[in-house]
Amino acid sequence: MMRTRPLKVALLGCGVVGSEVARIMTTHADDLAARIGAPVELAGVAVRRPDKVREGIPAELITTDATALVKRGDIDVIVEVIGGVEPARTLITTAFEHGASVVSANKALLAQDGATLYAAAEQHGQDLYYEAAVAGAIPLIRPLRESLAGDKINRVMGIVNGTTNFILDKMDTSGAGYSEALDEATALGYAEADPTADVEGFDAAAKAAILAGIAFHTRVRLDDVYREGMTEVTAADFASAKQMGCTIKLLAICERAADGGSVTARVHPAMIPLSHPLASVREAYNAVFVEADAAGQLMFYGPGAGGAPTASAVLGDLVAVCRNKLNGANGPGESAYTQLPVSSMGEVVTRYHISLDVADKPGVLAQVATVFAEHGVSIDTVRQQGKDGEASLVVVTHRAPDAALSGTVEALRKLDTVRGVASIMRVEGE
Amino acid sequence: MMRTRPLKVALLGCGVVGSEVARIMTTHADDLAARIGAPVELAGVAVRRPDKVREGIPAELITTDATALVKRGDIDVIVEVIGGVEPARTLITTAFEHGASVVSANKALLAQDGATLYAAAEQHGQDLYYEAAVAGAIPLIRPLRESLAGDKINRVMGIVNGTTNFILDKMDTSGAGYSEALDEATALGYAEADPTADVEGFDAAAKAAILAGIAFHTRVRLDDVYREGMTEVTAADFASAKQMGCTIKLLAICERAADGGSVTARVHPAMIPLSHPLASVREAYNAVFVEADAAGQLMFYGPGAGGAPTASAVLGDLVAVCRNKLNGANGPGESAYTQLPVSSMGEVVTRYHISLDVADKPGVLAQVATVFAEHGVSIDTVRQQGKDGEASLVVVTHRAPDAALSGTVEALRKLDTVRGVASIMRVEGE
Repeated sequence: MMRTRPLKVALLGCGVVGSEVARIMTTHADDLAARIGAPVELAGVAVRRPDKVREGIPAELITTDATALVKRGDIDVIVEVIGGVEPARTLITTAFEHGASVVSANKALLAQDGATLYAAAEQHGQDLYYEAAVAGAIPLIRPLRESLAGDKINRVMGIVNGTTNFILDKMDTSGAGYSEALDEATALGYAEADPTADVEGFDAAAKAAILAGIAFHTRVRLDDVYREGMTEVTAADFASAKQMGCTIKLLAICERAADGGSVTARVHPAMIPLSHPLASVREAYNAVFVEADAAGQLMFYGPGAGGAPTASAVLGDLVAVCRNKLNGANGPGESAYTQLPVSSMGEVVTRYHISLDVADKPGVLAQVATVFAEHGVSIDTVRQQGKDGEASLVVVTHRAPDAALSGTVEALRKLDTVRGVASIMRVEGE
Repeated sequence: MMRTRPLKVALLGCGVVGSEVARIMTTHADDLAARIGAPVELAGVAVRRPDKVREGIPAELITTDATALVKRGDIDVIVEVIGGVEPARTLITTAFEHGASVVSANKALLAQDGATLYAAAEQHGQDLYYEAAVAGAIPLIRPLRESLAGDKINRVMGIVNGTTNFILDKMDTSGAGYSEALDEATALGYAEADPTADVEGFDAAAKAAILAGIAFHTRVRLDDVYREGMTEVTAADFASAKQMGCTIKLLAICERAADGGSVTARVHPAMIPLSHPLASVREAYNAVFVEADAAGQLMFYGPGAGGAPTASAVLGDLVAVCRNKLNGANGPGESAYTQLPVSSMGEVVTRYHISLDVADKPGVLAQVATVFAEHGVSIDTVRQQGKDGEASLVVVTHRAPDAALSGTVEALRKLDTVRGVASIMRVEGE
């Protein structure tokens, strides 16, 4: 059954992930051929720095002209691991025009303009696969697109950024502050020199956009995702979380509204109970919790980044796309038929943990409670601690819309007896 | 792009899972049509008891003649949820002969004779999908067959039977004995009136055979799987496990030998460290831990049984198979090209926790240690506890072949100073 003419694969980018893809394509060539039904051949590698030594990659395959490579016309599959919006977008659409399917790990591009890519793929009868774009090695896109294609997904909640999970895990286990934990993450190579994309939640927001679109069969773009970073999480927040039997994680949360008529996507730090499966996700691991009507609660766990894990996801897609090529068929395309509107953060309903610095005198609690009541936010528990004329008040609310909570906090700040709002954190996973 | 002629689906079996599949096909008809690209129509339902009231299923679709249904020739996809080897095997192969693809939840049949089904599917150009056969709603077969198709899987270790996990979890958390925990599982509907298939590990062994075959691209049959039930696990074993920072789970473990030249598959109770992700899998949940060369450690978690979760897996397969029908293509078939031999349990290398009742006198430990040494089993730790002339000796070994351990235990039983071997349990996940 084995075809002898090899399928030709070209790599755009040969960094940490690309070089690992090339390595596995060489060392596991026989296995890949057996699984695909035809050999695969590395036919070209576009790089920025052609002079760098690239072990195992013949020099004649290296080119700096990525455009010429995708236009060659004899390439069956393009693997795009350069990242960023341009030139990746143009290269990918050009690849489709020239008869190649595409495997991409490009979360930023897919979150910002996935629809354009899908449309180009469909127009030219090619496949677009991108398992590696979200949660590295963890099979997630395929289970959502295919395994759960007969179910109704209501919620996707996950730890999709390893850097921030490493930092938060350090803070949790060692009592370190944010800066100290970030320094350790940087020293160990878990955080980049400029950690902004990770710690401010941009990376997780791109993944949330992709996940929400797939889960709810609609289009969610990066701009639709509410985003809050985790740089302001303090050791005191972790202490508060512990008192509640919780820990703190940076979560990407995609939800279908209770009435089914809209969806939301957001990224922010949140307290979750220690009993929740996401609470025990340590170090730089990722995990995504999925709730569906029929399936119930599922969780997918594994390494969310790194050369080899990301290459594993790329190669799984490569095998699928090559099989499709041999079958003359295509995998599932974009499924955005529900066209659900994306609601703003103000409409998200969740619980809150609010820590206030207040004057230590009678009547303060009554004042504060009145403000919550006036904004329709129902209080679950209150804890008062006082010393030396200063006191803190920790309020945990029942479920309320985010806009109501914002209004409450604004009003609280205006009270003479409230000296400051020490922290506001959402409580999820209950 | 929507085709108007519906794809015709027939159900074999309409019990807990089948009725749920029929219900979702009706209530989610529009979503399924949008995701497939054509409507799907329930065209027939084969049952044993035609007089039973089946809500939502038109009476004219019901038949007791399953053979005539699969021979009709106008059916695109057969969903087989009757279970057992025959008549399921004949019905499935007949369905392939008559131009239908098959979605099955039949672990017993797939474990015993998957090769026959695959061969028939390939001969007639049809698909065989069976996500629901292992771990219910958890996407596992598709991730192993497709997402990890570019990787090398070395180990699959999982909790794949919800009934036994429920019982062991009860024993762990409440200190109950096996009988008491089984009674609770039965009362709550987690255990069947005859729990043999679950508690003796037959169900898990069938799943292990399926998982090992897929993971290692070879054939592993039910008879190749070593199997030990969990009826002899005692409260004392849990106490010992706790002292070691472990709990006890019934595990299905599929491994590639270190030299890559053979594989093993086994089911038995084992101690695993509380820090292992499988240790925190509670109640009737399932979870499967996968180790691959490039991907690293992955885990898949969710409900392993029940009508709706199993139906979710069936419907995901149904969508895929229907898409393939529309594309005129087939999904991945059997991948057994490695043809690796399956080694016996004696060749499995793991660690052991052995509890001995011994005479409380000097020299016993030296005698016991000598026996371990003579069999080449290296001791990691020993704990002695004595009272009233009786003593217990708990030995935890380093990694050793199972055959060496068996020989050790046999020799220990012959020592005058060893009054009995209270328990032997393997230690995994370290």
